Order: sequence, then C-alpha cells, then structure tokens
Amino acid sequence: RIDGARLWRALMDMAEIGATPKGGVNRVTLTEVDRAGRARFAEWCAAAGLSLRTDTMGNMFARREGRDPNRLPVMFGSHLDSQPTGGKFDGALGVLAGLEVMRTLDELGIVTEAPLELVNWTDEEGCRFGRAMMGSAVWAGVQPEAAIRALRDASGVTVAEALAAIGAEGAEPATHRPADAFFELHIEQGPLLEAGGEAVGIVTGAQAQVWFDIVLTGRDSHAGTTPPAARRDALAGAAEIVLLVERLMRECGELGRGTVGRLSVHPNSPNVVPGEVRFAAEFRNPSDAEIARLAREFPEQAAALAAARGLGIVVTPVFRVEATPFDAACVDLVREACRRRGLAAREMVSGAGHDAVHIARVVPSAMIFTPCKDGLSHNEAESITEDQAETGAQILFDVVLARANR
Amino acid sequence: RIDGARLWRALMDMAEIGATPKGGVNRVTLTEVDRAGRARFAEWCAAAGLSLRTDTMGNMFARREGRDPNRLPVMFGSHLDSQPTGGKFDGALGVLAGLEVMRTLDELGIVTEAPLELVNWTDEEGCRFGRAMMGSAVWAGVQPEAAIRALRDASGVTVAEALAAIGAEGAEPATHRPADAFFELHIEQGPLLEAGGEAVGIVTGAQAQVWFDIVLTGRDSHAGTTPPAARRDALAGAAEIVLLVERLMRECGELGRGTVGRLSVHPNSPNVVPGEVRFAAEFRNPSDAEIARLAREFPEQAAALAAARGLGIVVTPVFRVEATPFDAACVDLVREACRRRGLAAREMVSGAGHDAVHIARVVPSAMIFTPCKDGLSHNEAESITEDQAETGAQILFDVVLARANR
Ligand SMILES: NC(=O)NCCC(=O)O
Ligand SMILES: NC(=O)NCCC(=O)O
Repeated sequence: RIDGARLWRALMDMAEIGATPKGGVNRVTLTEVDRAGRARFAEWCAAAGLSLRTDTMGNMFARREGRDPNRLPVMFGSHLDSQPTGGKFDGALGVLAGLEVMRTLDELGIVTEAPLELVNWTDEEGCRFGRAMMGSAVWAGVQPEAAIRALRDASGVTVAEALAAIGAEGAEPATHRPADAFFELHIEQGPLLEAGGEAVGIVTGAQAQVWFDIVLTGRDSHAGTTPPAARRDALAGAAEIVLLVERLMRECGELGRGTVGRLSVHPNSPNVVPGEVRFAAEFRNPSDAEIARLAREFPEQAAALAAARGLGIVVTPVFRVEATPFDAACVDLVREACRRRGLAAREMVSGAGHDAVHIARVVPSAMIFTPCKDGLSHNEAESITEDQAETGAQILFDVVLARANR
Repeated sequence: RIDGARLWRALMDMAEIGATPKGGVNRVTLTEVDRAGRARFAEWCAAAGLSLRTDTMGNMFARREGRDPNRLPVMFGSHLDSQPTGGKFDGALGVLAGLEVMRTLDELGIVTEAPLELVNWTDEEGCRFGRAMMGSAVWAGVQPEAAIRALRDASGVTVAEALAAIGAEGAEPATHRPADAFFELHIEQGPLLEAGGEAVGIVTGAQAQVWFDIVLTGRDSHAGTTPPAARRDALAGAAEIVLLVERLMRECGELGRGTVGRLSVHPNSPNVVPGEVRFAAEFRNPSDAEIARLAREFPEQAAALAAARGLGIVVTPVFRVEATPFDAACVDLVREACRRRGLAAREMVSGAGHDAVHIARVVPSAMIFTPCKDGLSHNEAESITEDQAETGAQILFDVVLARANR
C-alpha cells in the first residue's frame, strides 16, 4: 500500500512554493516560482534514485529502470504549473502521487518488469501563453515546437525565452518515443464524484474543445466629446461578444461550456473610448459535431456583431482538441483496480483538458479522477481530503504495477 | 503679434518627450517621461526669466511680475501630462501658448500692470489614478489633498509616492490663493469648430460629469468543468453593465456620453471563469439634472444586473463635476478679442473636463478652443495646424493682456 501521509506531506510541501494568502497556489509556468517547484521535484527524484532527463520543452522525465531492458516504459504523471489563482492539487496531485508510487516500490523492494517514467509536463494550464497542455502537445506532435516556442505572453516574453530564463530547457528532443502506456491521476475539477459519493472516476475520455484569440479594433477617442454616433467602441463590441459566447454555451444545454476568461483593453484609460480589445474565447462539448459547429458559427456571429458597429475583427482559432476516447485496455486496468479495492467508482468523460488527452494520440493512455470539494478548481479554495488523495494514488500504484508487470 | 513658428517649435520639441511610433505622445502623469517634460518646461521658463514655484501636488507656477505690486495675478495655462495613447496638443497647447505669451511680451518690452502666472497643472488626464483634473481639483479645494495623495495606480503606487519618485513635489501649499483670472487655451477635442469652419471657440462653460469605480465579484472556476448553471461569471456580468452604460448614454440622445474606458479581469486566464472584474464608468451631459438622474439610476440598474447573476457588486462614485458656467466678464474678453481680430468664432460648451472647470470655482475663469482634425482626441492621430495653434495663442495673448492691463 502507498503511504497516504507521506503523499500528503509532499503535496503540502509543494504547495508552499507559490502559496497565496487565500490558501491557493500561484505557480504559473516558467516563472521563478515554477523554477523552485521544478527544483524541489528534481531533489525528490534524486533522493528516490530516479534518473532525470529534461527535454527542450522543459518536460521532465524521472526514470526507474525495470528488469527487462527490452520493455517499453510505463509512463505516468501530470503537471506542476498552476493557474495564477489556482489550487494546491490541480496537477500536483498526479505528479506527487507518481512520486509516491516510486517511493512505495522502493520500500517494498519491487523491481517492475518494464521501466517506469514519472513525468512533469510543462505548461499544462495555458494561462500564460494561451495554449493549454503545451508541453505534452509538442511531445505528442500535436503542436509544432518552433511555433510554440515563438508564442508570447502578455509582456512579450516568448516561450523560448521563458524556458531559458529559468533554465528549464533540457537536451532531449521534445518528441514522443515509444512507450507502453501513460496514466494520469488528477482531481475531477467538477462536481459529479462528490455528488454521487464515488471515491474514484474511471475516465473513459475527454471532451472536445476549441480556443480562439480575438482582436477587436475601434478607434480611441475622447469620452467627453465623442457623440454616440461617432463612437467605435471596441469594449462595447467585446461586451456583445462575451454575451454571445455565453448564449452559445447556453444553447448547448447543461453540457455546453463557453468562456471568455482573458480580456484586455487598450489604452485602458477611464476617459478614453477604447480603441482595441484583445480577448480569448473557448468552447467545450462532449460532441465533436457541436464543437465543429461552434468553430464555424462563433467567428461568423462575432464578425457580424463587429461589423454592425464598424469595428475591425480578427478571430484566430488557436487550438482545437477533438473528443478523445482513452485506450480501452488502459481504462480496463483502472476499472479492475477499483473493483479489486472495492471502491465505488463512476465512468466519466473529463470536462477539462489534460496532458493525457494529447499523449493518448501516441501512447495508450487513461486517467483516474479523485473527487474535489464542490467541484471547484481553478480557484484558490480548491480542496480535497487526505483520504481522497491516498485512494487516487493507490489506484495509480495498482494500475502502474499491473501494466508494468503484465 | 505672437510668433506662430516659435510656438510650433515648442510644441514639436515637447512632443518629442514621450513620442510614440504612431505620432502621438505617451507622457502619463508623474512618470519619468512626465519628469522630462516638466524639466524642459522649467528650462524654458528660466530662459524666459520667469520665477518658478511648485506646490505639494506638483502644480508648477511660472511668474512674470507686473508693474503694480498690489494687483492679483492673471493666471493661464493647462497641463503637460497626456493619455497613454494621447496626442501632441491636448494640454501642451495651453501651456506652450502661455509660454509664447510670455516670450512675446518680453520681445515687445511690455510690462503688464498685473503679474502673470503660467501654470502646468498635475495629472489633468486622470488616466493613471482615476481622477481627472487632479492637481487643479486639489488647488481649487474640490478634492481633499490627503485623500488624493493616497490614491493608487494599477500597480499600487500612490500619488504621494509618484510625486516623490520624480521629484515633482514643491514646497508651496496646494491651495488656491487670490487671483484675478484664469484663462485656458485648449484644443476642442470635438468636431463642432471644424464642421462650422470657425477658427475659435468661445467656451461659455463645461458640461456635468460623474465617474464611478465598479467591482464585480463572482467565483473563479474551471472553464471546462463548470456547468452553465453553476457559473458566477464576473466578466459576463461586466459585459451587461458595459452595454447598460452604452444604453443609458443613447437614451440621453446626441448630447449623452457614457463610457467604460478601463476594465480589468481577474485572474485573466483563458480557461478560468473570471471571479472578479474591476472597471470604471463615466457619464457626461450638459444638464446637471440628467447627470443627477444617472448618478442615481446607474448604480441601481447595475446592481440589479449583478444580483440577477448572483454576483457581488460595489459601485463607488469617485467624482462628480456639476455643469460649470465660466465667468461672464472673462468670456466677454474672449468674445471681444475674436471680434477685434475679425475671427469666425462659435460660443460653445466644453464636452471634456478641463482644469479651468475646477479653477472656475475659486477664480474667474474662461476658455478658448481651437479646432482639431476630425474632432479626434485621446488618440495618437490627434492633430491641429500651425495656423490654428497660432490663432488660439494670439487670442490668449490678447485676453491676458487686456485683463492684466484693465
Ligand atoms: N486540468 C486543467 O485544469 N487543465 C487546464 C486546461 C484546460 O483548461 O482544460
Ligand atoms: N481635456 C481632457 O482631455 N481632459 C481629460 C479629462 C476629461 O476626461 O474630461
């Protein structure tokens, strides 16, 4: 059995790095705080005798050799970066539960047949450079590395510069190599498990999503002198598009998701009619057809709203992830582990994107969810219990061991 | 006659300080760029033999003595700060035309009866600390100095710290002292003079305005997992209020003004349903009754929109300026000067706020407008001709001389 108290200590230690006054974590990707998180993780890996390699995207792979040199590695992990006002568990649980798996194997003196690799993927959150699951997307070949390295954050810093600035860049190429499986433990970030009283989510896949960047252009002018008819107010136009996103979400019913989470106004002065607004919009749905429809209709409808106001608009689709079914055999291992442990479990589709969604394109993958309080995530109040963490980590251990020794 | 070419050179020299690639100026109040602008102005004043005093708010007074030590000073001036994407003339014209008046008097060997004071008021634009006409408001006793000094910009820097950081703070108390008159030359910042083919605006007063700061509070949550009904999206709520401001403006007809110029989203991450939005809203109207009505109705209607979404809201009125008639005798001097010079002139009410609006409460005041291209201001493309600048400065000269020698 894994050691739940040790896992909890690791989670709390990691949560000190970037701790916020409201009990959350601000460990945004490729910042000094992320550097500190990576360093602590690297120390722990070294202490556990794991050999650490880092690729050019900063993805970290901590390896434990197996008995059979011809077997492909069984991989598992998640991410250590957080949202600017994120929680302690989103991502960190999957990485530190993976470390706990390694520590438990050591304690039990178990050498698996296949080698094991624990991964910390770079920039899963997407909050800084606008592309979620960035490191895993490059590794899986879903996004071209050169284009990703050239992306800029709000201050104009590129991914390449940010990687270099914190020394996160390694020598290994950021491309997938053959692996036997990838497992990711994560908090659900939604309300279903808590509502149903289940201890574990058997994640059969993830829903589709599409993200856009939008630039609306009007004309800066004086708030006191510019008559209503002469205004080309980019913020009033953006407000209509924010409400369009919400309306399109609601039209999809309970399963629909549509969000404008980031928006900036230029010149952002109280007495200037705004001449430019830049924002991001994203939609999610379990149905690829719905996302395909929104990917078509949202830009059209947004453009019509802009045109009616005499505003310029550029809508750029920045990425799209199709609905992703996980590997049947990998999902079966999770199912089987829950059954053996006698745990109430629910089969479910992930609402959030995860590194496993990209990795699933090149390596057989599956995910394990633990409940989280009020289904709340991307919030400093995000919370889970020590028991829930332990249960999730135990299932991860069971699944990894079963796969590596099959 | 004043020297139009010399005035234009001064305007172009000043416009180098904070020049933007698009031909505008970014000389936001109490920044290093503002420091440089103030320094150049101080040099020019010294070269013109003016004695410079600065008050605790950084307002600069450049004095030329008159013949009669018992006469009160005739004041004139405007501001050297700009919007972040402002033009070369908004404010600078009034200050540098004032300097041209001093230079011309020297050249002509004229000593006026009354002393003259040329003023550069601190932070007229209001873009940094959210209070327009800040320095003149304190000087006129319209805003309490201590409260103003404690205001913070978006980075948390207070007015007091910003004054100290660039050494803008002087020894003189920032309170009004007896003065004979205050005249301000400014670009119109609106389309009327250009449309009417008039060379000068005789400004009879300024319209009323009210500014609000609004904080909307929802709940940060995950964009992929939070169902429509569980969202408390502060940005969707803010979008409704932005459109409410626009609707309230339109209901006032052609004379109405209503603007949300500044808005910031927290945590501002593409895949987080925003938990907090802070923004500024302002309304203007020639009628005090309309502004009084909006000052009552806007907070009520905004609160109703927030409540319908389960959002918290705090609406703080940050300042209100009543419709201000200028001093009849001072306005008459402007009228008379236009008549004598045979200039087509229009009597008008200012759409923008100006330092003269605050000063008018304690010193008899009036304003002179020059046309500006397309009525465009608070925009880098703001533009006037050398002739327009010269004509405005000539009227300022005539008016100052008439008043000082009356
Ligand atoms: N799991 C998670 O929060 N991922 C961030 C990317 C997304 O928004 O789906
Ligand atoms: N003249 C001018 O642009 N003043 C700024 C304050 C205002 O917005 O009225």
